[in-house]
Amino acid sequence: MYRIAVLPGDGIGKEVTRGAVKVLQAISDRFGHTFQFSYGLIGGEAIDREGTPLPEQTLHMCKQSDAVLLGAVGGPKWDKNPPHVRPEKGLLQIRKEMNLFANVRPVTFYESLAASSPLKPHVIEGADFVIVRELTGGLYFGKPSERRVEKGEEAVVDTLFYKRAEIERIITFAFTLAQKRKKKVTSVDKANVLESSRMWREVAEQVAKRFPDVQLEHMLVDNAAMQLVRSPKQFDVIVTENMFGDILSDEASMLTGSLGMLPSASLSVDGPALYEPIHGSAPDIAGKNKANPLATILSAAMMLRLSFGLTEEADVIERAVKQVLNAGYRTADIAQHGDFVLSTTEMVEKVKDAI
Amino acid sequence: MYRIAVLPGDGIGKEVTRGAVKVLQAISDRFGHTFQFSYGLIGGEAIDREGTPLPEQTLHMCKQSDAVLLGAVGGPKWDKNPPHVRPEKGLLQIRKEMNLFANVRPVTFYESLAASSPLKPHVIEGADFVIVRELTGGLYFGKPSERRVEKGEEAVVDTLFYKRAEIERIITFAFTLAQKRKKKVTSVDKANVLESSRMWREVAEQVAKRFPDVQLEHMLVDNAAMQLVRSPKQFDVIVTENMFGDILSDEASMLTGSLGMLPSASLSVDGPALYEPIHGSAPDIAGKNKANPLATILSAAMMLRLSFGLTEEADVIERAVKQVLNAGYRTADIAQHGDFVLSTTEMVEKVKDAI
Ligand SMILES: CC(C)[C@H](C(=O)O)[C@@H](O)C(=O)O
Ligand SMILES: CC(C)[C@H](C(=O)O)[C@@H](O)C(=O)O
Repeated sequence: MYRIAVLPGDGIGKEVTRGAVKVLQAISDRFGHTFQFSYGLIGGEAIDREGTPLPEQTLHMCKQSDAVLLGAVGGPKWDKNPPHVRPEKGLLQIRKEMNLFANVRPVTFYESLAASSPLKPHVIEGADFVIVRELTGGLYFGKPSERRVEKGEEAVVDTLFYKRAEIERIITFAFTLAQKRKKKVTSVDKANVLESSRMWREVAEQVAKRFPDVQLEHMLVDNAAMQLVRSPKQFDVIVTENMFGDILSDEASMLTGSLGMLPSASLSVDGPALYEPIHGSAPDIAGKNKANPLATILSAAMMLRLSFGLTEEADVIERAVKQVLNAGYRTADIAQHGDFVLSTTEMVEKVKDAI
Repeated sequence: MYRIAVLPGDGIGKEVTRGAVKVLQAISDRFGHTFQFSYGLIGGEAIDREGTPLPEQTLHMCKQSDAVLLGAVGGPKWDKNPPHVRPEKGLLQIRKEMNLFANVRPVTFYESLAASSPLKPHVIEGADFVIVRELTGGLYFGKPSERRVEKGEEAVVDTLFYKRAEIERIITFAFTLAQKRKKKVTSVDKANVLESSRMWREVAEQVAKRFPDVQLEHMLVDNAAMQLVRSPKQFDVIVTENMFGDILSDEASMLTGSLGMLPSASLSVDGPALYEPIHGSAPDIAGKNKANPLATILSAAMMLRLSFGLTEEADVIERAVKQVLNAGYRTADIAQHGDFVLSTTEMVEKVKDAI
């Protein structure tokens, strides 16, 4: 029996997690597994109901589970809230509290979606890489992060902080992953400006010595933002700081034409992992049964593979998604002029049928 | 008489500034202006010859000039140097010392270059926007930026710092620019995570009140990185923090297919401005007469317009560049299979001929 904590969150988070749970149920029917789902509040709805974006009870439930499936958090309703009662704070807190230091964002080219990408087919055809984003440090978590008065003037400060051991941990993770893939790590930093990046580069060099079969390349973050668009096929595993990873992975989603296609896994050293689509809560289409559930369904597949070791089951989901796309089924975000557009629930049914 | 300080710097910096100076001479011949050029050291060569990336003498000369034209700095030779004797430090210092707070990076779509862009033509056709990057604050300049030992562990810190007045100055600049353009400002931040971004957003709202004819929109930096690729036509003026601007502008260069096409201006409140291509020193092709001089030539055009008020002359250069591209002339970076590839000096001659 696998215990899965489901945190639908806000906006389309509810719809897409519902879809992924249905797909997981289809897998359990076919393979005879038992998935036990328990539900918790996070984000805006948790603020409304419990006064905090990450209730103690939710965190407890997640820590007791074998894996967590999260939808998305946030919405205009809470945008003016003070920092500690913002939906996003719940997400940042759960990452920190569960020690989810490694965010893994695979970017896969889908032949059948080439038309939805703003990039030319020859640029993206065959691209297949993973962005490994450090998730519990860097500019997101450094202290101080505050307003202050300096020489009588109003000012503000945020802090990019890393312990050397944190850098080493994420880079080692990236090398281990690359060893199972195309054996190349691109470490992205801004070593010509930031001291943290210079340490990052040093650590990367050191870690590389332990992986003689993996090639290490350094790339400045501005150049990386360009290269992702210019020639994404050059990449295998990209590893980078939290904020840089946030920016680069959203950019990279354009290879598939939509954020609605990209799953992610957030892993800790030994506790349960968390799986979530990289897209947000999309308040504009929330509740309209329009959202693309595939990123969350693909996140569930990552869960089966990485948390439960259910490789075949994960493959079945991923193949089902490909098959559905090949058959021409599209949600609005990936539809082209003339395509027949499916709702969220219809797309989920198609994937279930294919399983 | 206009006094122009020329800082060729390292790598292809020398070749591209030489080209731009020739083009400026062609303009002076045609329009009867006198441009007086004086040359200074910066970057790696300054380190080699003077022991510092920004010699006092260079800074003095620049401050006495009417405008500065810079090539590029940096190269592998100095990559292992300690931070204060790195070529890039010279660039950061001159920006800070001359108070060049507003970096203006126009992104123009060239019909004739649509084939070199990795983006589909319908995505980029007609795109025309400007990235306004704050250049003397933010994550680049905040203190502390240092290694430290925390609870017995090695650690490192960088700091994103702004005075409220600095944020207000750059946002006001962006609104003033938008007023002369399509009247839309996209303020890019990470307000769901960073305190500095929340102040940034507040200030943007306040400044917007003084510009009722200009539309203000906020966009998260991860989303902006995606939107630049997905639908760049939506933008008019983008304004953002130093590090964010560095990343987004390199990414945006892909609309034209090459970093070798993008000029920039760095402006201060009342001192001389600095003009430089956004590309770097490209050590791999340095000295080979292969570099694309157009970004620097277009930077010189910006100088004529913004520092000297020579609008017609600037137009003449920009039209000459378009004409040369329309005629099919290409340096290697923007050439397609089958194109006849020109050297740096040949490209400069073509532009001169067109003037
Ligand atoms: C919602 C937000 C706090 C979050 C982040 O910035 O990490 C999101 O953009 C993501 O990438 O998961
Ligand atoms: C060379 C480097 C320090 C510089 C920067 O990061 O500002 C460059 O990338 C730029 O964009 O002008």
